[in-house]
Amino acid sequence: MTKGTLFTVCAPSGAGKTSLVNALVASLDNLTVSVSHTTRQPRPGEKNGVNYHFVTEDDFIHMLTCNLFLEHAQVYDHYYGTSQRWLLEHLHTGTDVILEIDWQGAQQVRRLKPDTVTIFILPPSREVLERRLRSRGKDSEAVIAQRLQAAVDDISHYVEFDYLVVNDDFSQAVKDLQAIVHSQRLTQLAHAPKLEKLLTDLLS
Amino acid sequence: MTKGTLFTVCAPSGAGKTSLVNALVASLDNLTVSVSHTTRQPRPGEKNGVNYHFVTEDDFIHMLTCNLFLEHAQVYDHYYGTSQRWLLEHLHTGTDVILEIDWQGAQQVRRLKPDTVTIFILPPSREVLERRLRSRGKDSEAVIAQRLQAAVDDISHYVEFDYLVVNDDFSQAVKDLQAIVHSQRLTQLAHAPKLEKLLTDLLS
Repeated sequence: MTKGTLFTVCAPSGAGKTSLVNALVASLDNLTVSVSHTTRQPRPGEKNGVNYHFVTEDDFIHMLTCNLFLEHAQVYDHYYGTSQRWLLEHLHTGTDVILEIDWQGAQQVRRLKPDTVTIFILPPSREVLERRLRSRGKDSEAVIAQRLQAAVDDISHYVEFDYLVVNDDFSQAVKDLQAIVHSQRLTQLAHAPKLEKLLTDLLS
Repeated sequence: MTKGTLFTVCAPSGAGKTSLVNALVASLDNLTVSVSHTTRQPRPGEKNGVNYHFVTEDDFIHMLTCNLFLEHAQVYDHYYGTSQRWLLEHLHTGTDVILEIDWQGAQQVRRLKPDTVTIFILPPSREVLERRLRSRGKDSEAVIAQRLQAAVDDISHYVEFDYLVVNDDFSQAVKDLQAIVHSQRLTQLAHAPKLEKLLTDLLS
């Protein structure tokens, strides 16, 4: 049976992950970004089921208790999680799914779905990383130092990932991601089921 | 330390392997085809050290006795083999090497170099396969049937390979091979050593 691949993509803040993933998804067929459940309020323009599945805290806790999440995290006062059912429904149609999460989430995913293909995106230098973290607003030096330290802590987990992509030249980084998805579709596991007819014809 | 990857590429006769590999090697830097040792005579235009390392039967047997081959095969009256030393010298410079061999050779390579990335190339249909095997000359039906059966036997080993590429549209098949090599260079194992400076800078 044809089945999609789950790609888990991680990066420190300031690595440009979301722009890269959006460009990747726009450039390939049969590839989508996972839609998480969250307890936070929709921001203007955000649509339920498109940007997030917006749920109440009670519903979220209920799903959590029933082990319905592949991974989840609490960020400040809000919960975020990836529904196993949503994910499996998409993978079973043969669609590849990208999960944009942090390294803690990636560890949870690896435990429950060891066949996930994991990618870590790196900034091209500490200087660029710092510049990107600074340009987010007019924060104090202390806040920026804290943010930089958090990014460095995140980066130290790069060794846990299957692939490393450096976001130096944006279009090159997109090509790198495309090559990873493209080659994954050619693996025995992903490709043989799609070639069932051809293989039967050749071996008859 | 930067180290190249060994790609082992197999296909039945008539799948168009050599043309694909030549186009792939011409399209990418740092990628070369392995130069085998052989006891057969050079054909017009063939150069020692470029097309093959031409050696005497005594020399070949001596190398074989000393376990100097990663894989070897006897085809009719001639020996062919891949020297471990030649291969390691190239891989240690960071060059990726392609080994074009049959599935028996691939089994030998996997035993000695389990980190080899293996690719099987398939023809797009039995009809095309038969046409390609026919167009090689004016052979009898019996010879063609024998050749087709040999190809089918080869194809039955596709399950032993990491990647499957169908040579239907030639340029698409070249792109498939490029994606496999490209993504392999982004794996943790291949990429992290090349990123040593960046990682030190980011984590300092």
